[in-house]
Amino acid sequence: MPTPVTDADLALAAELGQQLRVDSVRSSTSAGSGHPTSSMSAADLLAVLVSRHLRYDWDNPDHPANDHLIFSKGHASPLLYAVYKAVGVVSDEEMMTGYRRFGSRLEGHPTPVLPWVDVATGSLGQGLPDGVGVALAGKYVDELPFRVWVLCGDSEMAEGSMWEALDKASHYKLANLIAIVDVNRLGQRGPTDLGWDTEAYRRRATAFGARAHVIDGHDVAAIDRTLAEAGAPGGEQPTVILARTIKGRGFSEVEDREDWHGKPLPAEMAERAVIELGGERNLLVRGPEPGEAAARRAADGHAEVKLPAYDRGQKVATRKAYGDALAALGARQDVVAMDGEVSNSTYANEFAKAYPERFFEMYIAEQQLIAAAVGFGVRGYRPFASTFAAFFTRAYDFIRMAAISQASICLVGSHAGVEIGADGPSQMALEDLAMLRAVHGSTVLYPSDATSATALVAAMADLDGISYMRTTRGAYPVLYDAGESFPVGGCKVLRSSAEDQVTLVGAGVTLHECLAAADQLQQEGISARVIDLYSVKPVDTATLAEAASVTGGRLVLAEDHHPEGGLGSAVVDTLTGTGRIDLAIAHLAVREMPGSGSTAELLAAAGIDAAHIATAARDLLA
Amino acid sequence: MPTPVTDADLALAAELGQQLRVDSVRSSTSAGSGHPTSSMSAADLLAVLVSRHLRYDWDNPDHPANDHLIFSKGHASPLLYAVYKAVGVVSDEEMMTGYRRFGSRLEGHPTPVLPWVDVATGSLGQGLPDGVGVALAGKYVDELPFRVWVLCGDSEMAEGSMWEALDKASHYKLANLIAIVDVNRLGQRGPTDLGWDTEAYRRRATAFGARAHVIDGHDVAAIDRTLAEAGAPGGEQPTVILARTIKGRGFSEVEDREDWHGKPLPAEMAERAVIELGGERNLLVRGPEPGEAAARRAADGHAEVKLPAYDRGQKVATRKAYGDALAALGARQDVVAMDGEVSNSTYANEFAKAYPERFFEMYIAEQQLIAAAVGFGVRGYRPFASTFAAFFTRAYDFIRMAAISQASICLVGSHAGVEIGADGPSQMALEDLAMLRAVHGSTVLYPSDATSATALVAAMADLDGISYMRTTRGAYPVLYDAGESFPVGGCKVLRSSAEDQVTLVGAGVTLHECLAAADQLQQEGISARVIDLYSVKPVDTATLAEAASVTGGRLVLAEDHHPEGGLGSAVVDTLTGTGRIDLAIAHLAVREMPGSGSTAELLAAAGIDAAHIATAARDLLA
Repeated sequence: MPTPVTDADLALAAELGQQLRVDSVRSSTSAGSGHPTSSMSAADLLAVLVSRHLRYDWDNPDHPANDHLIFSKGHASPLLYAVYKAVGVVSDEEMMTGYRRFGSRLEGHPTPVLPWVDVATGSLGQGLPDGVGVALAGKYVDELPFRVWVLCGDSEMAEGSMWEALDKASHYKLANLIAIVDVNRLGQRGPTDLGWDTEAYRRRATAFGARAHVIDGHDVAAIDRTLAEAGAPGGEQPTVILARTIKGRGFSEVEDREDWHGKPLPAEMAERAVIELGGERNLLVRGPEPGEAAARRAADGHAEVKLPAYDRGQKVATRKAYGDALAALGARQDVVAMDGEVSNSTYANEFAKAYPERFFEMYIAEQQLIAAAVGFGVRGYRPFASTFAAFFTRAYDFIRMAAISQASICLVGSHAGVEIGADGPSQMALEDLAMLRAVHGSTVLYPSDATSATALVAAMADLDGISYMRTTRGAYPVLYDAGESFPVGGCKVLRSSAEDQVTLVGAGVTLHECLAAADQLQQEGISARVIDLYSVKPVDTATLAEAASVTGGRLVLAEDHHPEGGLGSAVVDTLTGTGRIDLAIAHLAVREMPGSGSTAELLAAAGIDAAHIATAARDLLA
Repeated sequence: MPTPVTDADLALAAELGQQLRVDSVRSSTSAGSGHPTSSMSAADLLAVLVSRHLRYDWDNPDHPANDHLIFSKGHASPLLYAVYKAVGVVSDEEMMTGYRRFGSRLEGHPTPVLPWVDVATGSLGQGLPDGVGVALAGKYVDELPFRVWVLCGDSEMAEGSMWEALDKASHYKLANLIAIVDVNRLGQRGPTDLGWDTEAYRRRATAFGARAHVIDGHDVAAIDRTLAEAGAPGGEQPTVILARTIKGRGFSEVEDREDWHGKPLPAEMAERAVIELGGERNLLVRGPEPGEAAARRAADGHAEVKLPAYDRGQKVATRKAYGDALAALGARQDVVAMDGEVSNSTYANEFAKAYPERFFEMYIAEQQLIAAAVGFGVRGYRPFASTFAAFFTRAYDFIRMAAISQASICLVGSHAGVEIGADGPSQMALEDLAMLRAVHGSTVLYPSDATSATALVAAMADLDGISYMRTTRGAYPVLYDAGESFPVGGCKVLRSSAEDQVTLVGAGVTLHECLAAADQLQQEGISARVIDLYSVKPVDTATLAEAASVTGGRLVLAEDHHPEGGLGSAVVDTLTGTGRIDLAIAHLAVREMPGSGSTAELLAAAGIDAAHIATAARDLLA
């Protein structure tokens, strides 16, 4: 519990608030860009939080019992960096010369290139969902008493993801989560939807299961009381503090003005602002320290993982292999899993049955699904998040931001492509490979059989960055012996001879079609090399280039995906990146809008079945 | 107003409800897949709605005064198709032999291949947001008294997009929108988050500004009273009806059972179900007709559009050209615009100033932004929706579904790539071209100057499907004379000679860098062809192939985007699709995670500035 507040504490907090304002003005003016007014509205909130309530060892940001501080309104970075100066971890000089400059760690919006930043923010509506993930880890897996404090903007309360977050926070009784909403009533281009109607916000937050407080966000005593109550142990509800504030607070020329969003003050205005705010200060403050904490479970030694084994020829869906492998990986204490209410389809339920205490149902809220994974990653866990491959499109912004957050999360999408059959195009992922390949530093895997799927699931658990596996609905024959190795970035040459005239490249269902096509072609005396491109990114350039060289540059690329950005692009991009090359490519992909039907009907209609692959190969040789 | 209800009306509705159940069981059993139990829970709601309240001329689905009926829970397609049988527009035979079959219009989830379906659903949480768009059009632009009835599932209330929808519905006082939530308490893998806690739903709906009713969803009299009240004219609030229902209602073997989601009944169970439900019926019912309606504004003749003109060499940002062109397009009565609270950055505010009655502020809710556009498209309008290019990632699932919905919507994303400078990676679209190219039937445009931008904005207004334009933050010289033509699917060869040794391809900021590189190379005696690839999809294969042929297959592709799926892929994909080809490609793209900095610093760091382009060209010639 915080010590009883004294008048001196409150006076210090008020002074600190002014310092944070002054520094927000100074840094953004020096940079020539930034959001000083959005920082000034929240300065008193942060001053009280940092000086009195946030339990944080600033010299040891990895301390397991540290509270977490997330700026969901990432554009208030001047305020955050002013806090870092006030606690003594960033110098005034770095703040003044680094902010928003090339090569500096003080970027325009916070990213984890800074050791005190958990997640990148700046795409609004993500910090609170990420905070839910961190709080879930704290309450259920770390079992540590840290709190997660999230500074939110009022504009971002219009994002549905904020309500997904509160819904899950109340469902999971996350009393360790405190959202502080800076209700300054002004967005970028003008007033917000709800303005200063803090009662409307209160009704919504309460209806979503939070304990809600409406306060004057510039009354340091009221802030202190409310933060103390919010941070106290016990209870079963997350807290939402609705702080009525004034944008640009403290400098009369910009206070509550519509046209001052995201603009630094010109130098002479900044001078007047600093004077009105009482001048520059260099207060150095530290708040409470975190308590003792046992080592986290995540830090435990890894248990031995015994992957499931399948017999060659046995028909097993790769989604089932995912579930089996994930359950096996559960022997590692750092592995957690979550799903978007379809775990009986993705087979994440195999993990849920084996390790219910490390499985988190996120219901149909894919943005929160990814954010929860990111939050577990912040705490050092290895999250696997699954849903239908198509529905990861719902969370693309979260996936993109997870990459900027340097998160290492494993995503697994089932039911990809027209292969799914009767459910129709809304359920068919036909853009997922393109979407995930375009994410910075991502790994994209697409196994064709259960053996490779299990090996790749195990590999994902040790990959950095965003890794994605596409699994298939239907059961297809196991192609490889248990224990075979599938390095990420490799591929398997399933058929080859010195006489190969054409190369067939597929993955997932189309690999099986490629094999059938090769059989047809063989009967006609055409020898085809067949490549299982289980690693779509990174891709095995050398093996593909060798195949292209041997088979006269003739390649048939077959994928159950739209033609843009998927397996075909991965192959063509890499081959044309190797220097001068002579190619004759047939690229078979889903080019028309599919409807319902059987798998065979839909593969044929899309022109990606064995017959079309064989025809394309013959045409290349004609 | 509906006529006063009689006992006969209610008896008929109850009978119809049983028929809808029987037919839901029959069609899904015949198909071997589908969601009968999710249909049975909502059958009474639909029976009363269709027989007594929905004003719809089934023989004229284009009647402008028709109410709209949207199945946000698209998996209840057996129920929807049973309704179509009951109103006589689909035969029992088509329902029994077509449902979920290849080539049939009765797909697994509803799509607008059916004339009575407004939007494709099946990705949950989208039908209600789409309905908000339709209701906005009805209230503010059509000014017609039709109502929008949306059947929602309870599981999908976990999607944040549903709350974005209610937030906007109450903000815009959409009393013409009625959400009917089928609270059957069971999702796919088990109980929903809130189960039968209809009071929790009521609190949430009320807090978000709706008029909420909790009813027994199997009490036809209560349903009738509530629908009458909801559909009555007047008021300023949307309605949310929370109907407590039983999944599988009417067949005791599956009622309220957890393990019967998305499964057809085996034949012998289906027989018992039909018997318990009172046997097959062939009731033919029609509800009220729509009233008279004047022609919609959308049907007005197009006014002459006078596009803005710029002087060559003048520095104008393409985002500003977008705003200018959109304001000019406003002369067309069918053009509407909406933005995600950044209209002063995207310059959509130019339209808002000129045509405030056709501009809709969607605040920071990008999913609802796209859904609103789709809804306006349903009513025949031509919507332009804008935000930062990076933030369209937030709505990828909505964009993907809009393509399945056959929507024609125009999306414009500003502030793309590292070009934006100091704001950092969260604000940099580096995946948008990949994302939009992978959408079925999409058009992807990326102008480099204001003249081409305005011409392409005008072209977008007549394109079918999803069109996307990427605009640039900074101001660059106008390259073309006003009035020059920019056909979609074309490109411009800005430098060319018979001696060209290498081709430089760029768009947006990199096109200007390509021009500067060509100048450098020219001084060294190297003649470079320069192509402005303003149309990234469709792409001008012939001109690219000709350039490749003339310049010995040597191309430098430069883009302010991650290397996967963007401009470079578009060029390589198309060139390798033209038959055997000999290429030497240098692909310059953003391969590392950028930070903050100036445009020049960041272009250089990414290796996509003039110096790097020139070096790449020299290397290809070495």
